[in-house]
Amino acid sequence: MEWISRKNILIVGLGLMGGSYAKALKRLGFHVAALDRDEESIRYALQEHIIHEGAIGMDERLVREADAVVFALYPGVFPDWIRKYQHLFRPGIMITDVTGVKSCIVYQIQEILRPDVEFIAAHPMAGREVSGVQNSDERIFRDANYIIVPTEKNTPQAIEWCGMLGRLLGCGRISVLYPEEHDEMIGFVSQLTHCIAVSLMTCSDNTHLSDYTGDSFRDLTRIARINDQMWSELFMMNRKPLLRQMDVFLKELTEFRGLLEKGDTEGMREKMRLSTQRRAMFDQRT
Amino acid sequence: MEWISRKNILIVGLGLMGGSYAKALKRLGFHVAALDRDEESIRYALQEHIIHEGAIGMDERLVREADAVVFALYPGVFPDWIRKYQHLFRPGIMITDVTGVKSCIVYQIQEILRPDVEFIAAHPMAGREVSGVQNSDERIFRDANYIIVPTEKNTPQAIEWCGMLGRLLGCGRISVLYPEEHDEMIGFVSQLTHCIAVSLMTCSDNTHLSDYTGDSFRDLTRIARINDQMWSELFMMNRKPLLRQMDVFLKELTEFRGLLEKGDTEGMREKMRLSTQRRAMFDQRT
Repeated sequence: MEWISRKNILIVGLGLMGGSYAKALKRLGFHVAALDRDEESIRYALQEHIIHEGAIGMDERLVREADAVVFALYPGVFPDWIRKYQHLFRPGIMITDVTGVKSCIVYQIQEILRPDVEFIAAHPMAGREVSGVQNSDERIFRDANYIIVPTEKNTPQAIEWCGMLGRLLGCGRISVLYPEEHDEMIGFVSQLTHCIAVSLMTCSDNTHLSDYTGDSFRDLTRIARINDQMWSELFMMNRKPLLRQMDVFLKELTEFRGLLEKGDTEGMREKMRLSTQRRAMFDQRT
Repeated sequence: MEWISRKNILIVGLGLMGGSYAKALKRLGFHVAALDRDEESIRYALQEHIIHEGAIGMDERLVREADAVVFALYPGVFPDWIRKYQHLFRPGIMITDVTGVKSCIVYQIQEILRPDVEFIAAHPMAGREVSGVQNSDERIFRDANYIIVPTEKNTPQAIEWCGMLGRLLGCGRISVLYPEEHDEMIGFVSQLTHCIAVSLMTCSDNTHLSDYTGDSFRDLTRIARINDQMWSELFMMNRKPLLRQMDVFLKELTEFRGLLEKGDTEGMREKMRLSTQRRAMFDQRT
């Protein structure tokens, strides 16, 4: 199969995700190179044998030798990087990414990309509350959902290669979604939940509550430790779907509040039974 | 110490909590009896040696012999039970409970209770998403927070006994809060979080999302499997504090939504930095 021949992997952006890709792929026998503007990240990754080769900022040879490129940079700098360096790509290489928002990136990249290379977007739904290559860990992919996000421009081969990459990382469930479907879904399951967790922590001074809290508050705010630069950028790039999902949730919670205020116990119980039933189905499927 | 002499424990209401108390206390050498209106729960608990003695509904001898009573019933039936059966209590016995709301119960019980017995309220912040004595497990208390909720009527001895009971169960942190403090706190850390989890599940049909979701949605909705009868009752009994906490949260999430709509990235980042800092402090303390 074609993907086997793509032996030289270049990772652009060696943070938590890039480092985790590097660890997984190097262990599987790929040749892994990386670029990062942070000297310490490259130094650390070389010293710990996370990558075979690395360079600070740019090394044209590493780009020229790549059979496949994994973009694990902040999404905002992705198009500029492509514009500036795509002349170095070998014809026929495959490019993928790890970005958590898609519509605003995928079409733009495919628009400006050379016609003899292909960009197939992917979103491995894995992560940790900490960042940096020092915290990278290939176990984050174990049982994680991995979403391939093709457009009409993508070839079946690219989708196949991208799916194999997900399997190689160890992801549990590989799915395919169009960019718009992906963004609505991610606005709900990931971005809205982060907004809720942040708002729970910021709505009142509750640090002393650790003396009293059970597991529920701890669970709901685990993700409130958040990389503010990355997440604010992701929110802005997915603003419309996220605003829609926030409105749906705010309306529902306000409705529940209304039931409580009116003393409509049966109305609350109906909501609770629906949520219990849905969450039980959810547990069965995961 | 006095609590050692309180050897005969009667548990009224043998569900998940009552059963977990029974298992922990029986193992420690207490004599444990239980009353429950459900025949199957009593039969199961006797067969599995979770209790020494038990009766369906009422057995006057068991009440007369008790040195201490743990009420683990739905809060709504607590005052009626006391009115109906308190003539059976031996003078000097200690009564405690496990109820998750306090102001609406504690003063009322202390008001109607015989003056020669004492009720000291407690809230072990432990639980599971499943119910029934069949799912009881004394490990739920391990490292759990245990709150003693006295009023001005309570004696230091009762507070001491109640705290020892928490320690014996294996709880990690024993605290003391007045009923009003307890209810505001619980409105926030427990009830509001359950309202959020339920609303996340009910606001749109999202059962298919298990194919895509990462850990955050799973974490935020774990508690959406909920005993609708018990929780709707708890919400109604703590309506005012819960409405206040819902309003604080709804205002904050709406404010965050406004920042996103305006494109105020710096405003969002400021919220995220505050939430990250608070959650980090929280992690240090727990």
